Amino acid sequence: MVRKYVFGTPLETGAVVSNGLKGENGFAELAGTEGKADLTEMTGLGKYFSLIPAGEGEEGLRFVHRMDREDIVYGLGENVRGINKRGWIYESCCSDNPNHREDTRALYGAHNFLMVKGKNKNFGIFVDYPGKVVFDVGYSKMQELAITVPDGNLYFYLMEGETPEELVKELRQLTGRSYIPPKWAFGYGQSRWSYMTAEEVREVARLHRENGIPLDSIYLDIDYMERYKDFTVDEERFPDFGKLVEEMKEMGIHLVPIIDAGVKVEDGYSVYEEGVEKGYFCRTQDGEFFTAGVWPGKVHFPDMLNEEANRWFGGKYKVLLDQGIDGFWNDMNEPAIFYSESHLKEVFENLADYKDKNLDLQSFFRFKGMVSDISNNEKDYESFYHVFHGEKIRHDKVHNLFGFYMTKAASQAFEELCPEKRVLMYSRSSYIGMHRYGGIWMGDNLSWWSHILLNIRMLPSLNMCGFLYTGADLGGFGADTTEDLLMRWLEFGIFTPLMRNHSALGTRQQEVYRFENQEAFRHIIELRYGLLPYIYSEYMKAALSDGMYAKPLAFAYPEDERAKRVEDQLLIGESIMVAPVYEQNATGRYVYLPEKMKMVRFRTLTDREETVLEQGDHYIEIPLEEVVLFIRPEHILPLAEKGGQSVEEVDFENLTLLDFTLEESSYEYYSDDGYGKDFENPAHRKVFRKKAK
Amino acid sequence: MVRKYVFGTPLETGAVVSNGLKGENGFAELAGTEGKADLTEMTGLGKYFSLIPAGEGEEGLRFVHRMDREDIVYGLGENVRGINKRGWIYESCCSDNPNHREDTRALYGAHNFLMVKGKNKNFGIFVDYPGKVVFDVGYSKMQELAITVPDGNLYFYLMEGETPEELVKELRQLTGRSYIPPKWAFGYGQSRWSYMTAEEVREVARLHRENGIPLDSIYLDIDYMERYKDFTVDEERFPDFGKLVEEMKEMGIHLVPIIDAGVKVEDGYSVYEEGVEKGYFCRTQDGEFFTAGVWPGKVHFPDMLNEEANRWFGGKYKVLLDQGIDGFWNDMNEPAIFYSESHLKEVFENLADYKDKNLDLQSFFRFKGMVSDISNNEKDYESFYHVFHGEKIRHDKVHNLFGFYMTKAASQAFEELCPEKRVLMYSRSSYIGMHRYGGIWMGDNLSWWSHILLNIRMLPSLNMCGFLYTGADLGGFGADTTEDLLMRWLEFGIFTPLMRNHSALGTRQQEVYRFENQEAFRHIIELRYGLLPYIYSEYMKAALSDGMYAKPLAFAYPEDERAKRVEDQLLIGESIMVAPVYEQNATGRYVYLPEKMKMVRFRTLTDREETVLEQGDHYIEIPLEEVVLFIRPEHILPLAEKGGQSVEEVDFENLTLLDFTLEESSYEYYSDDGYGKDFENPAHRKVFRKKAK
Repeated sequence: MVRKYVFGTPLETGAVVSNGLKGENGFAELAGTEGKADLTEMTGLGKYFSLIPAGEGEEGLRFVHRMDREDIVYGLGENVRGINKRGWIYESCCSDNPNHREDTRALYGAHNFLMVKGKNKNFGIFVDYPGKVVFDVGYSKMQELAITVPDGNLYFYLMEGETPEELVKELRQLTGRSYIPPKWAFGYGQSRWSYMTAEEVREVARLHRENGIPLDSIYLDIDYMERYKDFTVDEERFPDFGKLVEEMKEMGIHLVPIIDAGVKVEDGYSVYEEGVEKGYFCRTQDGEFFTAGVWPGKVHFPDMLNEEANRWFGGKYKVLLDQGIDGFWNDMNEPAIFYSESHLKEVFENLADYKDKNLDLQSFFRFKGMVSDISNNEKDYESFYHVFHGEKIRHDKVHNLFGFYMTKAASQAFEELCPEKRVLMYSRSSYIGMHRYGGIWMGDNLSWWSHILLNIRMLPSLNMCGFLYTGADLGGFGADTTEDLLMRWLEFGIFTPLMRNHSALGTRQQEVYRFENQEAFRHIIELRYGLLPYIYSEYMKAALSDGMYAKPLAFAYPEDERAKRVEDQLLIGESIMVAPVYEQNATGRYVYLPEKMKMVRFRTLTDREETVLEQGDHYIEIPLEEVVLFIRPEHILPLAEKGGQSVEEVDFENLTLLDFTLEESSYEYYSDDGYGKDFENPAHRKVFRKKAK
Repeated sequence: MVRKYVFGTPLETGAVVSNGLKGENGFAELAGTEGKADLTEMTGLGKYFSLIPAGEGEEGLRFVHRMDREDIVYGLGENVRGINKRGWIYESCCSDNPNHREDTRALYGAHNFLMVKGKNKNFGIFVDYPGKVVFDVGYSKMQELAITVPDGNLYFYLMEGETPEELVKELRQLTGRSYIPPKWAFGYGQSRWSYMTAEEVREVARLHRENGIPLDSIYLDIDYMERYKDFTVDEERFPDFGKLVEEMKEMGIHLVPIIDAGVKVEDGYSVYEEGVEKGYFCRTQDGEFFTAGVWPGKVHFPDMLNEEANRWFGGKYKVLLDQGIDGFWNDMNEPAIFYSESHLKEVFENLADYKDKNLDLQSFFRFKGMVSDISNNEKDYESFYHVFHGEKIRHDKVHNLFGFYMTKAASQAFEELCPEKRVLMYSRSSYIGMHRYGGIWMGDNLSWWSHILLNIRMLPSLNMCGFLYTGADLGGFGADTTEDLLMRWLEFGIFTPLMRNHSALGTRQQEVYRFENQEAFRHIIELRYGLLPYIYSEYMKAALSDGMYAKPLAFAYPEDERAKRVEDQLLIGESIMVAPVYEQNATGRYVYLPEKMKMVRFRTLTDREETVLEQGDHYIEIPLEEVVLFIRPEHILPLAEKGGQSVEEVDFENLTLLDFTLEESSYEYYSDDGYGKDFENPAHRKVFRKKAK
């Protein structure tokens, strides 16, 4: 049962789709609130929330729910901390913040969906509001959940149901089916900021192939472009780009270029000139195009929210599609702003004041702060405008939609340009609803062991919000990796839909062939390819049923009090549980089994050992090079034992069925060609069964 | 067995004491190396290390040891990551770095002692070199330990023995007995940057007493001073300071003021004027006093390494001792430099270049970097000089000794001014050897759950290096705490010798009475006071025997393969093991018992429950408000059941003896008046025994 509450006159963000309501879920649209909202008159909502003004004299609203001690709060998608979000304050405010620290309040996405699961309650809420929303989940007061929206215009959706999964399904039916990438995008990808030349790309391809390390994609970060201009390729460093794309494809490797949000201000650059001519860029209050500094230096931001500009920008992807490209990642689309022209000018003017003064401490820190605050400055986000649904609106009011609409632009263009074909698309910034158009990666993380754990925890939280195609930068983006960190991370990464090794300029290079134990890396990645039939099948089933690919244990074992507190094990699909090692120098870990399971230990894809373990607590030895997973009772894990060097080479038909059969196990296997879109064709599904001997 | 190797002509740092060698440990001083060092001629060292030049054309030396896969590396004192230091690269280079991230290489202290424990090897090394030393412990290559010293002049001590504890004892006999604080310093301390007025201090005292929360000290951070001038008190905000000190003492509370490294440049300020007159400040190459910007604005650094200046600076503590102060913390003594006058001038000159230019990205980041790199800049550390042992020496060559000598200055002054009395003294920066003069706190940490774990791991590592009196800022210094974080942290903090709640300006206030569940906080802190007889006794025994107060499990259970990998449980003293909860929202945790133990669950100091648990793995429920500990077989835990509001009130004589007696248990109890120095008096020791019924 979904109920929709209308406060004031909300913006239509596009998160909710009109055909979102089907099946047996109820849906009640309640009367809008004129003036002061009064929850006592709002059927259902007053049961969970009291409503107070957000602050004296403010227009904002605060929804307050008193939590019981045992309540668990799920959701909020891309955020730090646990699967259980209690104990911190989160802000939905898409931010280019590579420091994912425990006290970080906002990352790249804005995912305003959460669920409260208690002994006698199970409800979810989705706040459809495109500006900043604050979720205080027991931070100020341990037992209080407070959601603050800065103005009184929003849609508030309330979901009720028996289980969290039911609530997730309700959200997803409201907001539409999750994006489905091409099958090759489930292969292993290698990235670096940046492979600077075609020769470097060729070397990466060659060294993977020569060493027998499976690989399906190589990513092109910003330096493939000519002076960071979107939809250009630097001809000197990447001559005859189309041929390179072709050559890689013959090796089974897809090149995936990055597209940035800002369009370089440069005379003669057609995207810039067209945008200016047609007036498609965001403008300041007085009608000038807003100028920010990002990778290309000065840029204008296309008004992604303006339908015409949006279509125009989407059409530009054709330039690369025409050269054989079939996958993209959209970046810097919070949008990140290193500086704005006007603010920088102001800073320099102010700096002059400091120069001749005898700096005291306060002035010194003011001076330092002034410079460090230049980037992603709030004031800048308040200084430019969109035309959204025909109305001029200040950016900060719709900030969280920018990445969404950039990705929608691309997706709609693909639909028009190559309707028969799936194109890989994922974004850094996002808002619920964008999951229909693309996946996301988990942003610029760090080579920290705690970020493996963050990866584990973020995966189900994002799945809840509809983002199924996702994964972290394996090995870590910022900071220097180590061989063991990368290895352990890949051992979890083989279970994430997006499996990409990516690292930043200036950090230690981390292509797996750069380390001593290359053989172990090869075995781990080969195992991914062996698991692909299962991973792909589970992904497709989750996407097509508005379900989740990765789940917290508690979703499957709701009565198990211990399972509720497990924050470092996941159910991946319906058949297996994983319990990754994320502590340096650990040679094993504790694993909680909510029921009897069969542990499979993979020394390699084919050298494996099966052990049945009883329900309860186990300490499992897991040497650095090994992967273990756990098959649930009466479940089957299909495996392509021969694996392959690319997804194309994997045999999705002749499968080995690992199973844990007590009486009878079954598995519904989904398999299609991986490129077309007749997803619903029943021929893609078949059922495997095993009986106890 | 300790062997000393001399490379080149090392500086005498003062780390090693002449009377450091006693008992049955051997000690061999080997011939100095003239010119190229050749380990094949160095008895013993070549067995473990090969020696290579640190880099082409460089003077540095690199000592390389090939590690076996199962080797564990202990030591390195104050650093990030595990008790087992493998898998990262650490730099001994005292740094004011409040971001204790996983990839941080240097913190506040320089503790060049490590041990390698393998199946058939057990050796330790202490690199007595006062500049930067790099310890690559399997970072570049997983199986390689490489120690790099930038020039060829150093003492390299090699310890061999049967067990890590033996090596620790060898180091400690070499470097001297650990500092012993007054007994009240084992009470609970409350700190904040800063309590701004005497009234605020009184309020903190009152609110603890009114709410029955034990408290022994209130810390005065920088704002108690007049314009941040060392050895002054702001008379407006702290009128009649001596009376305040007295008033607090009557409540059983000691005021502990901070002392900073830099002396404010201000005419009429006697410390400054004397220092100038006598020439006691560090100078630049051309003989001017070096000017840095720190809290007071412009400061000069006393030349702590110059014996005469050192004594002079130490003597200044008398100003506060005379007002009744009996404890201090030395801060900013890496030394931290916000800016140097000369560098800041340079930056402003360079900034002018940027102003009128059309900034491209590179220039923008250069500009931003130039400003953010102003603080703690390497170049500044190369721009001033000490007079050390009569010779002029550039600061960076002896950088790691600054905090050491500042603390030595204070300690020697106390010895002269109040020889009969123990004075509390701990420092932020340190070097091995300084542990004779004071403790350290673990620096400016963050309100992160992972920093509870860091606290757990750093404690034994610091103990190894001689720093017994230590603890972290409980609740976290930087970033905002939460009620549960503070509570869980205190539940571990009650076992650390230094137990202080401290937080930074601008962060959430975290005195325990500010939170809802004050009762739980009171119970936890009361438990500390109940444990004091044991904590103090174990501390004293560790200090007097060159032993460790907190140990990794593996030190007591060397044959237990599982115990070797435990990184989140500690032995505290000889009788108990602790297993703190450091995960948010966890209601319990796994605990590994290397042998049968008795678990004691404290709901309060007196409401407790005892359960005997078998050797092996256990999942233990530990609700947020409860503390569990584990008594080892045939051991006794003495408890002062009545606790007290301050250490003075604790009855150290009439004890409850908790025990886990299978046949017979015994405990050697150390107790003295806690203020005098006749540590070795046998009357302070008695033995408790219990027999099985």
